[in-house]
Amino acid sequence: MVDLLIRNADVLQVEAERAELRSGRDILVSGNRIKAIEPTGSSDPSHAKVVHDAAGQVAMPGFINTHAHVPMALWRGLGEDVNLESWFNDYIWHLEANLEPEDVYWGMQLGLLEMIEAGITAVNDHYWHMEYAARAVEKAGTRALLGQAMFGEGGLSQIDETAAFAQRWDGAAGGRIRTILGPHAPYTCDDDFLRASAAKAEQIGSGIHIHAAETLSQTQASLQRRGQTPIEVLNECGIFNVPTVLAHALGATPGDLEILADLSAPVGIAHCPKTYAKLAMGFNNLVELRALGIAVGLGTDGAVSNNTLDLWEAMRLTALGQKQLLGDAEQLSIPQALTLATRESARVYGQADELGDLAVGKLADIILVDLSGTHHFPLNNVAASLVYNARASDVQTVICDGRVIMRERKHLTLDADEIRANVAPRMQRLRRREKAGSIQTYRP
Amino acid sequence: MVDLLIRNADVLQVEAERAELRSGRDILVSGNRIKAIEPTGSSDPSHAKVVHDAAGQVAMPGFINTHAHVPMALWRGLGEDVNLESWFNDYIWHLEANLEPEDVYWGMQLGLLEMIEAGITAVNDHYWHMEYAARAVEKAGTRALLGQAMFGEGGLSQIDETAAFAQRWDGAAGGRIRTILGPHAPYTCDDDFLRASAAKAEQIGSGIHIHAAETLSQTQASLQRRGQTPIEVLNECGIFNVPTVLAHALGATPGDLEILADLSAPVGIAHCPKTYAKLAMGFNNLVELRALGIAVGLGTDGAVSNNTLDLWEAMRLTALGQKQLLGDAEQLSIPQALTLATRESARVYGQADELGDLAVGKLADIILVDLSGTHHFPLNNVAASLVYNARASDVQTVICDGRVIMRERKHLTLDADEIRANVAPRMQRLRRREKAGSIQTYRP
Repeated sequence: MVDLLIRNADVLQVEAERAELRSGRDILVSGNRIKAIEPTGSSDPSHAKVVHDAAGQVAMPGFINTHAHVPMALWRGLGEDVNLESWFNDYIWHLEANLEPEDVYWGMQLGLLEMIEAGITAVNDHYWHMEYAARAVEKAGTRALLGQAMFGEGGLSQIDETAAFAQRWDGAAGGRIRTILGPHAPYTCDDDFLRASAAKAEQIGSGIHIHAAETLSQTQASLQRRGQTPIEVLNECGIFNVPTVLAHALGATPGDLEILADLSAPVGIAHCPKTYAKLAMGFNNLVELRALGIAVGLGTDGAVSNNTLDLWEAMRLTALGQKQLLGDAEQLSIPQALTLATRESARVYGQADELGDLAVGKLADIILVDLSGTHHFPLNNVAASLVYNARASDVQTVICDGRVIMRERKHLTLDADEIRANVAPRMQRLRRREKAGSIQTYRP
Repeated sequence: MVDLLIRNADVLQVEAERAELRSGRDILVSGNRIKAIEPTGSSDPSHAKVVHDAAGQVAMPGFINTHAHVPMALWRGLGEDVNLESWFNDYIWHLEANLEPEDVYWGMQLGLLEMIEAGITAVNDHYWHMEYAARAVEKAGTRALLGQAMFGEGGLSQIDETAAFAQRWDGAAGGRIRTILGPHAPYTCDDDFLRASAAKAEQIGSGIHIHAAETLSQTQASLQRRGQTPIEVLNECGIFNVPTVLAHALGATPGDLEILADLSAPVGIAHCPKTYAKLAMGFNNLVELRALGIAVGLGTDGAVSNNTLDLWEAMRLTALGQKQLLGDAEQLSIPQALTLATRESARVYGQADELGDLAVGKLADIILVDLSGTHHFPLNNVAASLVYNARASDVQTVICDGRVIMRERKHLTLDADEIRANVAPRMQRLRRREKAGSIQTYRP
């Protein structure tokens, strides 16, 4: 007896930079793991508790969002057409001064709702009031790696507080929730703060999720101020002694890349191309990063810069952006784009052995995608269609941890009407910018 | 009595680089034109032959695709991850050697189906067997500017033939079809051919739709070979004596831009950013082009490079691409992106007075867009949502020339099943590349 039988899917396999489709497959799920993948007809549907017909749909691993601030979905559209400094100082850090804990609960649910609709089953989220975010994830049935954000000026006591959150929630929701420490960035946390964060992470067996070298000008400012790059600072402060997710490292120097390539603890870079283009931040050279063996995953960042929480967009913009950056259309090929979106994102997320691949023994995070729309026809090349044609609205069914959480675009865990009804009345307060104060100043 | 009353829409007005939403408006359509736009309730619904409820939807001008090869949708996904030379010589020009006239009829319908679903009501199409394309447009109920493609090696007689097509079909389908002459490019048509094309266009009162300076390396090759840029060649051959649509002019030099800015006949540039990024061709600086007064419209190019026929994508990639190119997030603002997608595209298309704006007296090409999806919520900024969040699947209803051609995503003119049934059996023949011959060699 299996818990879930997904019948007659076309299963996407991405391996060694090749993307293959295995047509007419049944996926058998026991508990939260894939038990078998067999040609359709091999197994008896009456031996499954739940049978889901996926005929004509592509089954692929749920997307993993390696860097986000999910509750910022509340403010989408409110920081437009401005450069990074103004974006922080005139918009974001005023808006965030309005934030109350319950806002995170509803904002997180709102973002999870959008991500589920786009086939995202896991998110590495860096934000405030993360107890509330964790409760939203519990309810949504998705997977998350949660880190409570810290600015150095809030004092060292935050480290113990956020570590307590991390310890309380790590492994919660049947293992769907993992935790991480979240010092904000080397320009908002001084060296003592970074050192204490790294030591605490090592002590509790956690990792670090941090912004660093977000732009080349941040790197230049750091070099001028103290003669070291942001990556060098993190390295010296011991951050890289623990598994680290770096957002965004666009300003990493060749020397920085050598540091990152030589680390023994895993470090991954979250690549959020829509935000980078929108804020005119540049792009990293992913071909170079990958040649150095540095893991690169896809991210959405927050919706005030990215506007949507959609990794189809991120995958497409990654491929298009690298071709354009490198002046070479052969680079960041379709199989490479799919590799970044699946296995490599799982690596950055810290679960390379369990996620990012549909195979026996892996966790059952599976999305079913309908490529029958006009924009895919004729379906000459499924892999190309996934990278260049697919839209979030093509995702039909989402399974996370073995459980169907969206079926044929109907949510089974979150209540969209309830979320909207709870978000709407908050918005008048949340949109205030004048007299709202500011949580921080951007002065890298 | 009016023919169509669109009730209670939120009407998008884009003017002087401002985007405004006028909520709760009725749009009255008489024949194929907008008769009035009034606050809802001003007019009696019983005085309309057809009433369409648009409550909660945004009404905006139908998108105008200023450069495409629509029937290439047949081959989408078949020229992936290769640079321009290989794309032409190893893929496209072999594939196109398989083309038969009826393929264009069905391929055009297929592409029109996709474009209608994405809210595109007009297309400037450059392809072969255009009688067949014209019949598809007649049936679809959309608007098109059709030019039969010509390679110089086919001989000067083509010019009379395609001019005969142009004269036969100009103004057809109640004015929805206009025509244009289509010499392919200065690297595939010699000077005599270009001169004869220009003279013929002038004689019959037509314009020219041509590829030129597609990349900087084309410009360099032309300079080396003959000491003139492609734009200089076109200018000398008299092409710019008639209204011209240039695809893509990425390799235009500062001197070329001066030529274009000083022309008396209108010249417009079609900007197709997804194709440019995918083929690593670079981007033009649209801020500079616009400062010179040169019209720039959005295009999809063909689906073998662009994969989709979707101007939401093109609008978004235009804004993101320019910010990134110029290193300035204030550039290509949301109102500017909407201006390019509406008024400026109408200008490039040659109908600035009739299209690209919802106003009394204009042609009634109107799309109704549903922004109620999770990816738009909360709707803090409608204009931002249109540029950065909207997807083709948000388009609900499409009106062209006063006629509803898609209602709540149901096609009223084209038959999707019939199109698929006619396309599918052609694909085995159409996909052949070996032994299929080649229609041309790319050697600019």
